[in-house]
Amino acid sequence: MIEDKNQERTPLSHLGEFALIEHLTKNFKINHTSTIKGIGDDAAVLNFKDKKVVVSTDLLVESVHFDLSYMPLKHLGYKAVVVNLSDVYAMNATPTQITVSIAVSNRFPLEALEDLYAGIETATQIYNIDLIGGDTTSSNTGLLISITAIGEVEDQKIVYRNGAKPNDLLVVTGDLGAAYMGLQVLEREKEVFKVNPNSQPDLEPYTYIVERQLKPEARKDIIKLLEELNVTPTSMIDISDGLSSEIIHLCKQSQVGCDLYEEKIPLDPAVISVCEEFKIDSTTVALNGGEDYELLFTISQEDYPKIKANPNFTVIGFMKEAETGMHLVTRAESRIPLKAQGWKNFNN
Amino acid sequence: MIEDKNQERTPLSHLGEFALIEHLTKNFKINHTSTIKGIGDDAAVLNFKDKKVVVSTDLLVESVHFDLSYMPLKHLGYKAVVVNLSDVYAMNATPTQITVSIAVSNRFPLEALEDLYAGIETATQIYNIDLIGGDTTSSNTGLLISITAIGEVEDQKIVYRNGAKPNDLLVVTGDLGAAYMGLQVLEREKEVFKVNPNSQPDLEPYTYIVERQLKPEARKDIIKLLEELNVTPTSMIDISDGLSSEIIHLCKQSQVGCDLYEEKIPLDPAVISVCEEFKIDSTTVALNGGEDYELLFTISQEDYPKIKANPNFTVIGFMKEAETGMHLVTRAESRIPLKAQGWKNFNN
Repeated sequence: MIEDKNQERTPLSHLGEFALIEHLTKNFKINHTSTIKGIGDDAAVLNFKDKKVVVSTDLLVESVHFDLSYMPLKHLGYKAVVVNLSDVYAMNATPTQITVSIAVSNRFPLEALEDLYAGIETATQIYNIDLIGGDTTSSNTGLLISITAIGEVEDQKIVYRNGAKPNDLLVVTGDLGAAYMGLQVLEREKEVFKVNPNSQPDLEPYTYIVERQLKPEARKDIIKLLEELNVTPTSMIDISDGLSSEIIHLCKQSQVGCDLYEEKIPLDPAVISVCEEFKIDSTTVALNGGEDYELLFTISQEDYPKIKANPNFTVIGFMKEAETGMHLVTRAESRIPLKAQGWKNFNN
Repeated sequence: MIEDKNQERTPLSHLGEFALIEHLTKNFKINHTSTIKGIGDDAAVLNFKDKKVVVSTDLLVESVHFDLSYMPLKHLGYKAVVVNLSDVYAMNATPTQITVSIAVSNRFPLEALEDLYAGIETATQIYNIDLIGGDTTSSNTGLLISITAIGEVEDQKIVYRNGAKPNDLLVVTGDLGAAYMGLQVLEREKEVFKVNPNSQPDLEPYTYIVERQLKPEARKDIIKLLEELNVTPTSMIDISDGLSSEIIHLCKQSQVGCDLYEEKIPLDPAVISVCEEFKIDSTTVALNGGEDYELLFTISQEDYPKIKANPNFTVIGFMKEAETGMHLVTRAESRIPLKAQGWKNFNN
């Protein structure tokens, strides 16, 4: 579907391991004073002084987490970084460094890895982080990317998942379900393409949702905004697996219950429209779709005036005593227990 | 060859992602005061106070870095951790935390992952490190392990690769080539097994070299010993790719040359004997074999009295001006330029 206009194909075997890493990382610059030594020794050396250090790691596997038939490698590199940074922001921390390891089969030429690293580089620039290390090796099949993100945060600003209290407001940033519906559109076009390889998909009506799937952003702006508004959430998590699953994490770790109001769940009009087209319930998509990389957090009610006028935030419910359970309150005012859709990777 | 006596096979699909991680990591304990928050939030939180932070990462891929037909999963888990810790020790630092991510295909039952994590746990206990995070996902083919090791070190103790000076002595710990010859023995037995599956290999004469391959150790003791001897190396690296390649790294990054004396290269008698059996030159094995995980470092000559009586250390050469080049001085006193064997993974 996405044609590769790059006709050059340099086999990876033309370079040794060290030459490959050097080639792929030569454009990366070190910006943080906390990075004392980046790539090029047995290990990187960092200096966080009196700040706390935050570490998160993710593994992305071809055919499980991404499909290269519609995911350009540059976007993949960008997304792989962003997904990790999102976890650091979810601690109310600032990401400062990443390590990137890839396993890649011989079917990828050097130019493909250059595209991947171009996306990684763009992400490091936009989010102001240093690439400080990694590993590059061959695999027998596809592409695998392992990223570890490191960040810093002042002690009193760290926000865990376990600090929510009954009566705290449940707040979400942005809107939900778009990345999942973007994936549905891309999967549909892939099937069309299989039948008729000459068809050119018109993705124009789906620009927003496809972009949310292919080029998500982590909510760096929200961490800054919360600081400006002088709001420290009582608990926080990023939405990677779907709203429902993340609410359950906050509730279980904070030992509280929750009422989530269906009518409050923020949906972009494009999501509502494509859900109608696909005959899928938009609430189900928002609850279980995942890959939104929005932030979900709780605040004490006294902080409500600070956030209420802000279009970045939507209050979608409130926390209760644990015994009352976790519920979705539907538009028809019935109460349905929240369920985590769970993890389907091993059920293929 | 190594029979799996465990007849239980629980499909991974019986557990969700969170249940799987929880199950596999439930025995791990947090020991370090620098670990404020381990597994269970969006990211781990660490506190290194005024110490510097060291970060290293490695990716191990089935059929590229290990062969499960003779590598028991418990040993693999242990080795995967040790390989990473070795990089941290090579900075003269103390490893404190690791993250472990694995991608695994459906052909592995839960019991196999339990074995893998049992090995990881043993390593965390022996080396006194905390498991603070990771990711578990499915893969379409084999097993892949990505580990990031984090350590701490006082500013003035950090040893880089680039500090060697002309006339510094080149020192190596332990002995070299055993892990590579252990691999040759295991590969040979695998071929025998293919032809005659009833054959029981007698690995007894090869105990030392097979153990060096299957269960290597990182030189934690050397970091402690160097401190006790009050020796801070001028440069240091661990030997993962072979002595020759690592010497070249030290020389290039330090902008010096080197004379390496063939007769000084430490070899275990078992290595010499098996090299004769395989008709391989033992110097070639020591230079290019790799996976020794010994430490290679340089010290200024005035520190020589502090290390000379110690059986852990062998002086194998000395550094020179860069213009003189990097040479192996053979037993016959001819000078051969050192070459890095390079990286063969992509040449399959």
